[in-house]
Amino acid sequence: MSKTLVKNGLFLTADETCPLIEGYMEIDGDTISYIGKDAPAEGADYGEIVDGRNRLYMPGLVNTHGHAAMSLLRGVGDDLALQVWLQEKMWPNEARFTSKDVKWGTLLSQLEMVKGGTTSFVDMYDHMNEVAQAVELSGMRGVLTRGVIGLCPPEVQQAKLAEAKQFARDWHGKAEGRITTMMAPHAPYTCPPDYIEKIVDAAHELDLPLHTHMSETAREVAENESEYGLRPVAHLEKLGVFSRPCLVAHGVHLNDEEIGVLAKYDVRVSHNPGSNLKLASGVARVPDLLARGVKVSLGTDGAASNNNLDMFEEMRLAALIHKGVSGDPTAVPAAIALQLGTTMGAESIWLQKVGSLAAGMKADFIALDLDQPHFLPASNYLSHVIYSASAKDVTDVWVDGKQLVRKGKCLTLDEEKIKAEFKSRYSRLMEG
Amino acid sequence: MSKTLVKNGLFLTADETCPLIEGYMEIDGDTISYIGKDAPAEGADYGEIVDGRNRLYMPGLVNTHGHAAMSLLRGVGDDLALQVWLQEKMWPNEARFTSKDVKWGTLLSQLEMVKGGTTSFVDMYDHMNEVAQAVELSGMRGVLTRGVIGLCPPEVQQAKLAEAKQFARDWHGKAEGRITTMMAPHAPYTCPPDYIEKIVDAAHELDLPLHTHMSETAREVAENESEYGLRPVAHLEKLGVFSRPCLVAHGVHLNDEEIGVLAKYDVRVSHNPGSNLKLASGVARVPDLLARGVKVSLGTDGAASNNNLDMFEEMRLAALIHKGVSGDPTAVPAAIALQLGTTMGAESIWLQKVGSLAAGMKADFIALDLDQPHFLPASNYLSHVIYSASAKDVTDVWVDGKQLVRKGKCLTLDEEKIKAEFKSRYSRLMEG
Repeated sequence: MSKTLVKNGLFLTADETCPLIEGYMEIDGDTISYIGKDAPAEGADYGEIVDGRNRLYMPGLVNTHGHAAMSLLRGVGDDLALQVWLQEKMWPNEARFTSKDVKWGTLLSQLEMVKGGTTSFVDMYDHMNEVAQAVELSGMRGVLTRGVIGLCPPEVQQAKLAEAKQFARDWHGKAEGRITTMMAPHAPYTCPPDYIEKIVDAAHELDLPLHTHMSETAREVAENESEYGLRPVAHLEKLGVFSRPCLVAHGVHLNDEEIGVLAKYDVRVSHNPGSNLKLASGVARVPDLLARGVKVSLGTDGAASNNNLDMFEEMRLAALIHKGVSGDPTAVPAAIALQLGTTMGAESIWLQKVGSLAAGMKADFIALDLDQPHFLPASNYLSHVIYSASAKDVTDVWVDGKQLVRKGKCLTLDEEKIKAEFKSRYSRLMEG
Repeated sequence: MSKTLVKNGLFLTADETCPLIEGYMEIDGDTISYIGKDAPAEGADYGEIVDGRNRLYMPGLVNTHGHAAMSLLRGVGDDLALQVWLQEKMWPNEARFTSKDVKWGTLLSQLEMVKGGTTSFVDMYDHMNEVAQAVELSGMRGVLTRGVIGLCPPEVQQAKLAEAKQFARDWHGKAEGRITTMMAPHAPYTCPPDYIEKIVDAAHELDLPLHTHMSETAREVAENESEYGLRPVAHLEKLGVFSRPCLVAHGVHLNDEEIGVLAKYDVRVSHNPGSNLKLASGVARVPDLLARGVKVSLGTDGAASNNNLDMFEEMRLAALIHKGVSGDPTAVPAAIALQLGTTMGAESIWLQKVGSLAAGMKADFIALDLDQPHFLPASNYLSHVIYSASAKDVTDVWVDGKQLVRKGKCLTLDEEKIKAEFKSRYSRLMEG
């Protein structure tokens, strides 16, 4: 792969030492080889020179929790409580998902994500071979896991676990290293304790991280206490979940002691503000988590509970709601919100050299069209990205130095075919 | 003006009796003359026939509180408390605004608003002749008022009030009726009581409504109590503000009794969720206001405290935050969020025949591009508009039957010239 040069660019690096650079960025293969105010040393033979005028370049966004195929259920059941929504609207429909439904649902979501500036995403779902193949195709980075629900007979539990292990083994490190895998008990309320222990054992055996939903609603916490005598954090700690590197989604209802436990084990929390608000789950204690040194990142959750996959919106929600709810206008300032969506996102899901623009980092970056009223004046581009931008401002996207989106058009996925197939899968499901 | 027909359209009417229509809409001059499943009676001589395939048509959005020229201060001072932000960042800069700054700042904001689907907006600011001329030019609907701050010597107060009255008189009903006016004491904390009384007298004399900021922060409420012995609602009631039709912006900190007073006088509340969260002012009691019959609408506030003018985002925030904060997932459902941005918005600012798509209503409507991943599947377009859409999905905009935006391009305003002039005004301001 030859070198690429972006010239006349404005780079919001998400690097604390040098946040905004006007100048040049050089990409050598899958890596950023130079970024700086001055032109790089002469003599390079560039395969492509990109004119960066009127563009803001920044790291690709990292979406640390989701269920991509659930785009098939976008708008199917709004304004309902989590348990009702799950049990009456989601689970009955999802039970009828075939692997082809998951394929096309996931492809549609990847199309939405990548065109909107997300370059890495976590996916916890079923029929994960389809998801992995979709990641191979799209060129995105995927941290994938077969989420298992244990509310079933032991032989079915066993089969699901075997399938999850097989998937994790088969795909870890594949797609030129863009795919990594995890093990995932769906949640403490959907997996009996002994089943969770078996999944933890498997994660040890495969040397992989764990991912689970945890403490999403007050009801979940209360039921966990009444069923097991422990709140979810102590329950999962007891079952050994935190003996592995671990990413929990939501973490809305946490007390001080629990935050201390998460910090002690370096458990990472995927904050899903849009989903938590929509399902009325509550507002996670993000400023407190950050103050205690817990790594926090952002997830959209599935499109059925969000209802879009716009990571700019999640960064903005994270910056806005914690101010409004705490009464502290300095809570989650723009620079932190950017980190949640980039550097801390990458760290939270164990991605190496991903999340910021600096020499030596992977060339995962995006461009935004600055030539628009809502990006004026040129007062503060960090502020504009967090408080004013949206997914639809993204014009170009690169992962591993490869361009995936050019002038708003996805180069790796066939948008028209995906939309058509998706529509036909949805019709079939609804005829059900 | 000849007739226009939109055929093969999908219409989200914001009319409670018939929310979604697939079919035809006919526009005769400035008015919707027909909307329905079947083609209108034959024989009409259409000046234009619009093919509505892949488009969702809905009423233009109504932004009931803002300060358009403040786009010049977008990104200048984030993550600060309201009083600090006002006193250290906004007022010193605003004091140096000339009428030309207001002209170009307002034009840039109108460009952002109209391209993003807002067709009517409230503006409270200074140099209002420039704002009114900008509304004449853009073709938008403007409810305009010279906001007066009374922290100045009596003769200056007097001059400001005379100017505000003159403006209100000169422009009410102008621009083919698209401009209406109000009188506006800026806030109880910036206007002494006797000055507010004089402004109320002027509103009676001119038979105009009143608009003011009220109960935006807990600090404001506490200071009002300590200075005047009354909370802001009782204070304004005593000064006669509610003896006129009245629109208050924010209304974040209200007790039950105060909500009762607002309901009794039919005072309208412009809810500004983005601004209130960003400035950490708090979360207004919108479900309680609605339950008591108070008319609530949505405002972006100025771009310096939001930081964009995307009314889709305000509708989504209104639908999301009240669920998350109350714990009730049925709070502010999508249908109500749509009303806040359309029908209730128009009613709140006394616009006649504006806010929904129905025969006899003004032809203020917009089109969204449905052929995008985040609008799939075709499960529930009301849900998609509230939970998934953004300003950038808007392709076409009409006000009074006149097309203002076509395929994303504003037909009435010169975008390149406005951006260039805006940049030069900003540079001049920052040079001081």
